[in-house]
Amino acid sequence: MTESNRHRFRVRVYIEDTDTGGIVYYVNYLKFMERARTELLRELDVEQQRLKQQGLLFVVHSLESRYRQPARLDDELMIETGIQSQSKASMVFDQQLYRQVDQQLLCEIRVKIAMVDSETMKPVLIPPTLAQVLGRYQLATD
Amino acid sequence: MTESNRHRFRVRVYIEDTDTGGIVYYVNYLKFMERARTELLRELDVEQQRLKQQGLLFVVHSLESRYRQPARLDDELMIETGIQSQSKASMVFDQQLYRQVDQQLLCEIRVKIAMVDSETMKPVLIPPTLAQVLGRYQLATD
Amino acid sequence: MTESNRHRFRVRVYIEDTDTGGIVYYVNYLKFMERARTELLRELDVEQQRLKQQGLLFVVHSLESRYRQPARLDDELMIETGIQSQSKASMVFDQQLYRQVDQQLLCEIRVKIAMVDSETMKPVLIPPTLAQVLGRYQLATD
Amino acid sequence: MTESNRHRFRVRVYIEDTDTGGIVYYVNYLKFMERARTELLRELDVEQQRLKQQGLLFVVHSLESRYRQPARLDDELMIETGIQSQSKASMVFDQQLYRQVDQQLLCEIRVKIAMVDSETMKPVLIPPTLAQVLGRYQLATD
Repeated sequence: MTESNRHRFRVRVYIEDTDTGGIVYYVNYLKFMERARTELLRELDVEQQRLKQQGLLFVVHSLESRYRQPARLDDELMIETGIQSQSKASMVFDQQLYRQVDQQLLCEIRVKIAMVDSETMKPVLIPPTLAQVLGRYQLATD
Repeated sequence: MTESNRHRFRVRVYIEDTDTGGIVYYVNYLKFMERARTELLRELDVEQQRLKQQGLLFVVHSLESRYRQPARLDDELMIETGIQSQSKASMVFDQQLYRQVDQQLLCEIRVKIAMVDSETMKPVLIPPTLAQVLGRYQLATD
Repeated sequence: MTESNRHRFRVRVYIEDTDTGGIVYYVNYLKFMERARTELLRELDVEQQRLKQQGLLFVVHSLESRYRQPARLDDELMIETGIQSQSKASMVFDQQLYRQVDQQLLCEIRVKIAMVDSETMKPVLIPPTLAQVLGRYQLATD
Repeated sequence: MTESNRHRFRVRVYIEDTDTGGIVYYVNYLKFMERARTELLRELDVEQQRLKQQGLLFVVHSLESRYRQPARLDDELMIETGIQSQSKASMVFDQQLYRQVDQQLLCEIRVKIAMVDSETMKPVLIPPTLAQVLGRYQLATD
């Protein structure tokens, strides 16, 4: 894996993201991760609002996450995103979230995203042009 | 005002609702208030999903809120809701949120809800049958 | 596995839970799941606010989730929760979320919860009395 | 009022912010507004995590908001924030939220923030040095 095919996105922790434990509410890391995937898509000129107008929707099929250390209010976070694998109707994103100040890994996820018809919610093929541009963030296999 | 025309709805505070201050994140009271309005409507047999299928959407026009004391994790809250006034295309809800255990008033809001066309987002008349059932929670004027 | 050792909890879908895809935002199912775990604990007379006063905090260690079908506005959901396994400092919850009207399985997760010191965030033993009451929702192994 | 004493902050609309009406869930504008106030404070070198360590907490006392037009997925928003008035223990922020692409005003709020003791939640004086730096975003009165 080379550095060049991982997307980087910064997130700041606000009060809305925290909970009474004094840390980021664990569910909210998944929002941060989705913001990063959205920005990766935007960088590839793929806007989900436009996909929706074409009757296409990306939905989360399944998810594995591992929480290592908590983030706190005011922390600046860095999310690294790559595409681990792609099939005709889905793709698997591999994402790590780091605390910016000390590069500590706080959380990592592997999330399978499927393309569906926005009316029927049935799986549909990812348009080939879209599949192709996504290749830019495909992680090298060992 | 008689007690009989106020709708009551209970909410429990979960971790998702709190923030690092150890209290309910102030924005989340507005979610609780909306749940109560939704249940008031449901009790009157008005489901927003069905309205949406008719091309109708309730949107918040404006809001005034006053925060008196904070709620905390595990608190049980009681929301009282009445309709302060109604016009042809909007209505004003008057809502108070109490801590169940000691009946302490924590938060109160006055919120103006307008009916709009879900496509154009332009104001439309509230269907007369709907306006009529809403009268059940109309607060008496002094 | 007998029915008797699964906890049941109902959740209603409100507007706050949905997204522009017309479905429940996938991250919000995890909030519903946590509400159910909290109510399971409350039923066993374990309040997290009290744990916090003792310097104890439950945190999510890791998570696997699988999304099968989407929930929508106004849906009533039923969450079934059991404890799959317990160790000295953690436990694994097994949870399924069903649409009430047709008992359709929409989402399922397996989540490992660890007990930590709320100051240091380091793992600590689950107090034995707590571990014992949790046994009530322990799922039978095959 | 001169332009120079208004703080500007950009926000992007993500899926997490939207609802089934196809628009930003109205409560979430208030999160955006708080992010902007937090960044205004950070620019003045005031971090809320540090205030908390000193036993100080900013809480929302009251709020008025007016919703004019909805924002949608992928919209870029611009928030302008100024301080309308300051007292010894509170201040009133005046905030407008615009759609970046056409400078359309979507939402505006006036929010009174009070400083409280984080333990007792009772009002306390804003430290004079903090009150002074806040003057930088004080809006001119007519």
